[in-house]
Amino acid sequence: MKGLAMLAIGKIGWIEKDKPKAGPYDAIVRPLAVAPCTSDIHTVFEGAIGERHDMILGHEAVGEIVEVGEEVKDFVPGNRVLVPAITPDWRTMDVQRGFPQHSGGPLAGWKYSNIKDGVFGEFFHVNDADMNLAKLPKDIPLESAVMLSDMATTGIHGAELADIKIGDTVVVFGIGPVGLMAVAGARLRGASRIIVTGTRPKCIEVSKLYGATDVVNYKVAPIEKQILDMTNGAGVDAAIISGGNAETLASAVKITKPGGTIANVNYFGEGDILPIPRLDWGCGMAHKTIRGGLCPGGRLRMEKLIDLVQYGRLDPGKLVTHVFKGFDHIQEALMLMKDKPRDLIKPVVLI
Amino acid sequence: MKGLAMLAIGKIGWIEKDKPKAGPYDAIVRPLAVAPCTSDIHTVFEGAIGERHDMILGHEAVGEIVEVGEEVKDFVPGNRVLVPAITPDWRTMDVQRGFPQHSGGPLAGWKYSNIKDGVFGEFFHVNDADMNLAKLPKDIPLESAVMLSDMATTGIHGAELADIKIGDTVVVFGIGPVGLMAVAGARLRGASRIIVTGTRPKCIEVSKLYGATDVVNYKVAPIEKQILDMTNGAGVDAAIISGGNAETLASAVKITKPGGTIANVNYFGEGDILPIPRLDWGCGMAHKTIRGGLCPGGRLRMEKLIDLVQYGRLDPGKLVTHVFKGFDHIQEALMLMKDKPRDLIKPVVLI
Amino acid sequence: MKGLAMLAIGKIGWIEKDKPKAGPYDAIVRPLAVAPCTSDIHTVFEGAIGERHDMILGHEAVGEIVEVGEEVKDFVPGNRVLVPAITPDWRTMDVQRGFPQHSGGPLAGWKYSNIKDGVFGEFFHVNDADMNLAKLPKDIPLESAVMLSDMATTGIHGAELADIKIGDTVVVFGIGPVGLMAVAGARLRGASRIIVTGTRPKCIEVSKLYGATDVVNYKVAPIEKQILDMTNGAGVDAAIISGGNAETLASAVKITKPGGTIANVNYFGEGDILPIPRLDWGCGMAHKTIRGGLCPGGRLRMEKLIDLVQYGRLDPGKLVTHVFKGFDHIQEALMLMKDKPRDLIKPVVLI
Amino acid sequence: MKGLAMLAIGKIGWIEKDKPKAGPYDAIVRPLAVAPCTSDIHTVFEGAIGERHDMILGHEAVGEIVEVGEEVKDFVPGNRVLVPAITPDWRTMDVQRGFPQHSGGPLAGWKYSNIKDGVFGEFFHVNDADMNLAKLPKDIPLESAVMLSDMATTGIHGAELADIKIGDTVVVFGIGPVGLMAVAGARLRGASRIIVTGTRPKCIEVSKLYGATDVVNYKVAPIEKQILDMTNGAGVDAAIISGGNAETLASAVKITKPGGTIANVNYFGEGDILPIPRLDWGCGMAHKTIRGGLCPGGRLRMEKLIDLVQYGRLDPGKLVTHVFKGFDHIQEALMLMKDKPRDLIKPVVLI
Repeated sequence: MKGLAMLAIGKIGWIEKDKPKAGPYDAIVRPLAVAPCTSDIHTVFEGAIGERHDMILGHEAVGEIVEVGEEVKDFVPGNRVLVPAITPDWRTMDVQRGFPQHSGGPLAGWKYSNIKDGVFGEFFHVNDADMNLAKLPKDIPLESAVMLSDMATTGIHGAELADIKIGDTVVVFGIGPVGLMAVAGARLRGASRIIVTGTRPKCIEVSKLYGATDVVNYKVAPIEKQILDMTNGAGVDAAIISGGNAETLASAVKITKPGGTIANVNYFGEGDILPIPRLDWGCGMAHKTIRGGLCPGGRLRMEKLIDLVQYGRLDPGKLVTHVFKGFDHIQEALMLMKDKPRDLIKPVVLI
Repeated sequence: MKGLAMLAIGKIGWIEKDKPKAGPYDAIVRPLAVAPCTSDIHTVFEGAIGERHDMILGHEAVGEIVEVGEEVKDFVPGNRVLVPAITPDWRTMDVQRGFPQHSGGPLAGWKYSNIKDGVFGEFFHVNDADMNLAKLPKDIPLESAVMLSDMATTGIHGAELADIKIGDTVVVFGIGPVGLMAVAGARLRGASRIIVTGTRPKCIEVSKLYGATDVVNYKVAPIEKQILDMTNGAGVDAAIISGGNAETLASAVKITKPGGTIANVNYFGEGDILPIPRLDWGCGMAHKTIRGGLCPGGRLRMEKLIDLVQYGRLDPGKLVTHVFKGFDHIQEALMLMKDKPRDLIKPVVLI
Repeated sequence: MKGLAMLAIGKIGWIEKDKPKAGPYDAIVRPLAVAPCTSDIHTVFEGAIGERHDMILGHEAVGEIVEVGEEVKDFVPGNRVLVPAITPDWRTMDVQRGFPQHSGGPLAGWKYSNIKDGVFGEFFHVNDADMNLAKLPKDIPLESAVMLSDMATTGIHGAELADIKIGDTVVVFGIGPVGLMAVAGARLRGASRIIVTGTRPKCIEVSKLYGATDVVNYKVAPIEKQILDMTNGAGVDAAIISGGNAETLASAVKITKPGGTIANVNYFGEGDILPIPRLDWGCGMAHKTIRGGLCPGGRLRMEKLIDLVQYGRLDPGKLVTHVFKGFDHIQEALMLMKDKPRDLIKPVVLI
Repeated sequence: MKGLAMLAIGKIGWIEKDKPKAGPYDAIVRPLAVAPCTSDIHTVFEGAIGERHDMILGHEAVGEIVEVGEEVKDFVPGNRVLVPAITPDWRTMDVQRGFPQHSGGPLAGWKYSNIKDGVFGEFFHVNDADMNLAKLPKDIPLESAVMLSDMATTGIHGAELADIKIGDTVVVFGIGPVGLMAVAGARLRGASRIIVTGTRPKCIEVSKLYGATDVVNYKVAPIEKQILDMTNGAGVDAAIISGGNAETLASAVKITKPGGTIANVNYFGEGDILPIPRLDWGCGMAHKTIRGGLCPGGRLRMEKLIDLVQYGRLDPGKLVTHVFKGFDHIQEALMLMKDKPRDLIKPVVLI
């Protein structure tokens, strides 16, 4: 079968591979829609996770099951399914500890385009289908559904980690697709004021549709100053980091109240350290909690996200600015994530 | 000054009383809008809290400050304020334990029309003004604002107690004004499907505006059966009780999943016991948590609720079906809560 | 092979059965020590879980592995293992929801002597050995170790559910073996004062070794009165129910403070309902949370309990008052749990 | 009256000041026992909180009330009281948010020897006596009791912030008096294995009395390597930082499991930033939560700590290695904290 692969750091290309085989609990899926992720770009062009050879890329997909192992009980070939970017090994001690994302080691629940071939092939493999797939209702458009596999679960996890209480003021740093879902997530947890940082007009426009109430542009004045001014110097109840770099973490600590939470769902790709500003952190004593984690995956999470869409609580489709038709367009879509044209939030390829 | 009072169990009437005086930390407020509560009816006509003589009724109000004590720092006469139904004593051990509602004893944060004169007078007293009042922005209509003092904080507390997680399925028992705010609260915490029980067309209509997705009518079939059928026998993640009687608690336990939560914000007025159905509670072992509590009051809570309205997350005004103009209409409005005409959700009196 | 079985409600006896077979993820274990549980008595003589025919009894065991399935990775024949009473199916949605105990349905994590043959046979079956067994260090005596499989995890779970904070005052209702472990659990969570209810001298003596500071005897005065008197009328921060009947739940609600927690780990075997006293529950508004749940099982839990013993935090051996030697003594030991002689806490049979 | 004061950065000396006066809710206390704190040393000799002139030092005391304001209800002159280092303003929005420590601003609940005169005077002032003082039972020795005001509440808060679950493995960085109380706190929350880092023989000896099971000495091998080796590379469930410098935070992140917590109660006095090691923090995605906060103060906390001592759960007296008798010895005791002789943990001055 054909797949778009990382050949080595800095190089992508189409390759031929054997079609994957299903173990007794697994499924083989044919993609119906896929989306490239900024992390695919980091993986290939920045070597963020180290060297890989001929690894098929992609971890955001919906598809149709073409084969299931003999022990699979809830799915049969022909089922349309949502496939999470994170597909944990459910029989691990990490699950017993409450962290399926880290089953088998830190971040090891993330398998596609990391430790096994991704979803940019004609077929892909799903471990433990009964525990990791969710049936996709007919009335959710494929381009919306594929936003749930990573963007929605990640952005919403930012809001979960932020421990938002009803009526809180929240800032979201970065309004790429994950940040926009963090805005939606903050609203879903009951935030009142949601301040976002960003400059791209399309993202700003969509952020407001998802619930942003205030936009802060670093070109106007330092972000920290603007946020403190907007909150009469008090700072915010919670900050969600869904973009930026090490300095963003420092900014988040500065503009969060004592007792507040800084929640990270950004993949920090550079530098040896992430700096906590000592004085703004109350010399270690201000109860500003700093958390960060890989999004939840697995079947239940996907079913919950599908429910959000079904019951009108979330429309992830607003993220999709570019739609391609045909498997061969995957590379084109992927390169969009690298080039980031001004009107891009997220491309989808319908297959 | 004049006030509408409970003269004794079963009797209400207008009385004359001395205008209240402000201690050093207190304020005296003139009501601008008040709303009667079903609990005023329980208090007078059912003797729910025992005998009272010549106690002015009412605990839902917005008003204008006419006097402040010498130690009040943040308010001055002329300020328009939202007054919570619950005005805790902040200097108590109960606050240190985390339960201001119960400062001074169980439920003792509820003072108006319970342990002191309520807000249906020409003036009323506010203990610890700096800690219990919130400034009311001009652009929130008075009839909306007065819904925050009790209805919104109570209904939303139901959602808070229910420990809702994003994407959960929730049932709200009873869609009077508190139940409708529980629906809004469940949506604010990220529930997907929200099932409500009720029969009154006006309440059903408004419940959908606040986020209800399914309506269950006991006249069609037993409520428990309907909810279990709707959820393929699995039951719901959480149940909020905002109306009904002892049997409602039993129903809630029956239709909640193992690991789920039953949250009560209803005032149970009758009977010696509330029954937990033994088998449905897993003989004590099913991890179905049962919680219930008086709503939070105080300044911060009111400010948070005001923020929800200001930032477009909550429109409590949809509760208000009847508006009266003039202090003298308070009795008429109160009797509406007793007679409950078909199109009533909540009356407000603008003064 | 031979096993001590429930023949039908009210009847026990030795039977012959085929030796169990291991599926690919399973193990077969030969018991080294077993203990009968009061729930075996309820099962046989009260029909608490309904009719069963020729079901081998027992769910508390340590043993030696004699066979493992081909997919078992961490265990081999010859390993000495601690076997939890609760052996969840880890590949279920209930696990994804956070409740392995209820995998497959309410309480369905409890398999031995409930939905499959128990441990009172020459051999018994363990589902998903890698996820459910824990290696037993040599230096823990067998009679101590077997107390971990149910008594310790259950009693300690009572303390976990009770949400104890450092310095809290806690009452434990009932000081049979589970209650004694609840006392130890309350101490492990940092309770200061631990009040117990009970009358049996041996249990009272051991309760003090585990951390009880005050003993309340119902024969002296009503338990509720005594506890309220001891706490100057304030009541306790948390109550753990590990014995008693429906009235015990009512008592627990009465003597718990607003904001406190009532945690149940008792199996309520009788009656249609468990009564919450309405007024003492603040008419539904006093924030007295009522929780109850089956103990956690599985490998991680067992390893944590073993660590407690290894590092000197818990000595479960004090529960063991009667030790038998030889497989044939199981029936005798079981009948002790029925007859409850005055000096009994818990018998163990070394095999 | 006389008091030992910070004259300016780097200078201490005895000064004369007016005896403090009690406002209506306040008390004036005569110290019976006081203890110097390392932070007094940081304040004077390192200028950690900036310049101060003629400010009386000290914030750890027990004493006798000599005067109360007219609104004080629960205390009278002659009462022996435990005085917390942290005396919040209970009528603040920060309390309503759940953080009394930060009432009036970050860390502003810490008043003595920070924003007002401390306890090293013949008399000192207590704000809001009813909310901040606790009666001291006769049978607790003064030198034990004075350890509760700061050392015990701080160390135990480390354990609280660390979110320890029963049976967890915990590391405590630094075993000065706060670290030793963190060890005791970890045990009080149910930790099994408690690893400590340290080199001073006296501290190591006492750490074992409080529950340490393993000692790691940086002179033997890098601390991180030793801890990872001890835990088979898995790391610990939680780390408490109660000493050290910026690098200690980095070490703590490295040796904590995904899903674990790093809890800080150390006052970081130097450097612009505290470094989170990016890779060990899973590039922001490993769910290693970093928290830190000033200890709780106020009356309830002190009463809870007194209960721990009364019911035999905590013996803070083991911290006290040097006892002085007489007010005039305060300076000598304070200088011990600067010089740190080998056998010192904590000095107390009985007055």
